Amino acid sequence: MHFKEKYFELSGIRFKVNYKLYADEAKALEMAKDICLEQTVEFPEDLVPEGTIKNSIVGKIDEFKKLDDGYLATISYTVESAGNEFTQLLNVVFGNISIKPGIRVESLDLPVEILNNFKGPRFGRDGLRKLLNVPKRPILFTALKPMGLSSEELADLAYKFALGGIDVIKDDHGLANQDFCQYEKRVKLCAEAVKKANQETGYNCIYVPNITAPYDEVLKRARLAKELGAGGLLIAPGLTGLDTMRRIADDDEIALPIFSHPAFLGSYVLGNSGISHYALFGQITRLAGADATIYPNYGGRFSFSKDECISIAKGSEVPMGHVKSIFPCPAGGMSIDRIPELLEVYGNEVAFLVGGGLFKHGPNLIENCKYFRKLVEVF
Amino acid sequence: MHFKEKYFELSGIRFKVNYKLYADEAKALEMAKDICLEQTVEFPEDLVPEGTIKNSIVGKIDEFKKLDDGYLATISYTVESAGNEFTQLLNVVFGNISIKPGIRVESLDLPVEILNNFKGPRFGRDGLRKLLNVPKRPILFTALKPMGLSSEELADLAYKFALGGIDVIKDDHGLANQDFCQYEKRVKLCAEAVKKANQETGYNCIYVPNITAPYDEVLKRARLAKELGAGGLLIAPGLTGLDTMRRIADDDEIALPIFSHPAFLGSYVLGNSGISHYALFGQITRLAGADATIYPNYGGRFSFSKDECISIAKGSEVPMGHVKSIFPCPAGGMSIDRIPELLEVYGNEVAFLVGGGLFKHGPNLIENCKYFRKLVEVF
Repeated sequence: MHFKEKYFELSGIRFKVNYKLYADEAKALEMAKDICLEQTVEFPEDLVPEGTIKNSIVGKIDEFKKLDDGYLATISYTVESAGNEFTQLLNVVFGNISIKPGIRVESLDLPVEILNNFKGPRFGRDGLRKLLNVPKRPILFTALKPMGLSSEELADLAYKFALGGIDVIKDDHGLANQDFCQYEKRVKLCAEAVKKANQETGYNCIYVPNITAPYDEVLKRARLAKELGAGGLLIAPGLTGLDTMRRIADDDEIALPIFSHPAFLGSYVLGNSGISHYALFGQITRLAGADATIYPNYGGRFSFSKDECISIAKGSEVPMGHVKSIFPCPAGGMSIDRIPELLEVYGNEVAFLVGGGLFKHGPNLIENCKYFRKLVEVF
Repeated sequence: MHFKEKYFELSGIRFKVNYKLYADEAKALEMAKDICLEQTVEFPEDLVPEGTIKNSIVGKIDEFKKLDDGYLATISYTVESAGNEFTQLLNVVFGNISIKPGIRVESLDLPVEILNNFKGPRFGRDGLRKLLNVPKRPILFTALKPMGLSSEELADLAYKFALGGIDVIKDDHGLANQDFCQYEKRVKLCAEAVKKANQETGYNCIYVPNITAPYDEVLKRARLAKELGAGGLLIAPGLTGLDTMRRIADDDEIALPIFSHPAFLGSYVLGNSGISHYALFGQITRLAGADATIYPNYGGRFSFSKDECISIAKGSEVPMGHVKSIFPCPAGGMSIDRIPELLEVYGNEVAFLVGGGLFKHGPNLIENCKYFRKLVEVF
């Protein structure tokens, strides 16, 4: 043997990950055992040092049970393996095994010893409702597009949306810092337009620019957004890294609500290898500090099923210690006409993100917004 | 209509993305048209403003052809849509459509107008060979593990590996800043151990710590690594964000070779929705500044096929303007005995990452390393 038996002190506290394994029983059990090694010591089993490493660092199968289409393995890891850091927590949960077929992270079960390392959403549902002065009904959410409009044209759209009674107006996630709608000018004009509309309506509509950007730029853009009067921030953590979103959310000087966009994250939830909708767009997005999680709704131009969408809403509010509940934001080819149906499905704790659909309803954008608002004011 | 016809100036220069579409002809053509809208204006086709937006901002199908198991659509986008930023380039290539099934990015075809926005790898193959003083033969690469060893024990391993003639010794990607092998102490001891061994052997072995960490920490750790005598940096861009790796690679004060680890990226290449091995671990990893791209080799404990692995090696060297060629690093359950076979497949422009396999070969680690070295010295 290359290593001596070795003992050192660990807390004894473990966190759990539920993995769905797409295989028959024998193969699934083998996969579960493999995960225990792969996600921790990444070492041949017969060479793992005896003592604390073999007994506690290596993952443990706490439960193993049959599902309709595979097996569910609950595997626990010592909290010390995650080293109090979000990146390393994600690494233990799904780092190397992201490269092994037929493994899906279904859900996380994290003790306070892990949760306390993360602030989570600053506003959450209650905080965002207070900010917007919308105590009860669903939140009305839209996007500025199409790409190619000038900052003036986008600001004019924002003004109309705000006059029509929309609560949250975000940049399309494709608006970055292109020459035709340069970030600073766009944010300044759109924030002013929304402020002007609020003075006329008495509403608390917020403008939410897209700060998805290179490493050094993302913090600068967040600060500039705050300075220029934006009321929230849009970020696509698939493009910036999930921890970059957490960093922005944790910043006490920026202190704006965060809207998480799913761009570049889809591959995790399509197919049998990845992370469940519930865990990725629910639990992990919350842990990474978002106050609202955008995802493509069922029945639009994307492929998520109704059950998958409902599971995201569940993941957005499942108890997770001090980590606040956040708004699920069904989007992606939403039409206003579907609102009554969606109210039945989601209830009132939801933000409906209708983009192109707001233009489609009729020729007058302000009237379309008012109609959208009327539909949700049944609450 | 909500928008007037509108014209503005664009360069006329476009970049191309080859998408594989898993569908029959009619459906694949529909998917290709949809990508043109989804990745740019994200707007209903009949409402897209006439003029420059419809004519140039919306993606264009340049080619559409049949493959054995689907269709290949070459879609071009105006370079301005990517706004000179890596995050937005990735967004146009695969942002929203990551959420649509059956679409895979096969390869990128980027003009100098895009490539010139990125420095690419600082060292590349030639630079790394000079640094290591290995002019011709494959690079010998190993990892410090298992997780749970103390910094002293890891440094002792590093010393033995370096004495045995390994060129590059990296942290296991699961070593972060855990209490049992705290980052600063680990890096200091391992860098010193490798330096001491180099004085004995006359070799230029480098120690490569894992800097994968939260947003604010990653730069600090990279700088600390440099200060403490590390010779390269390991980073898992799936955990930090690809642009974070680019930021580190571009830093003229850090100026160390970057080794990219595939943790948390696997879901992109498994299944029919995602990015090809060639594009993700080859082209994109290079564009994001890595000097070496680690991936699980075929025939080990992961599932990549031989062809997929060869495609990564091709993506690591395909001409991309000034963007240097980088080392493919097959890894993941590699055993020393396979080296002769792998030399046939990869030739000499490769870094063989053998981790656990180095321990398995025999009881004496230094002798195992020497044997490994002898096998590649046929060049």
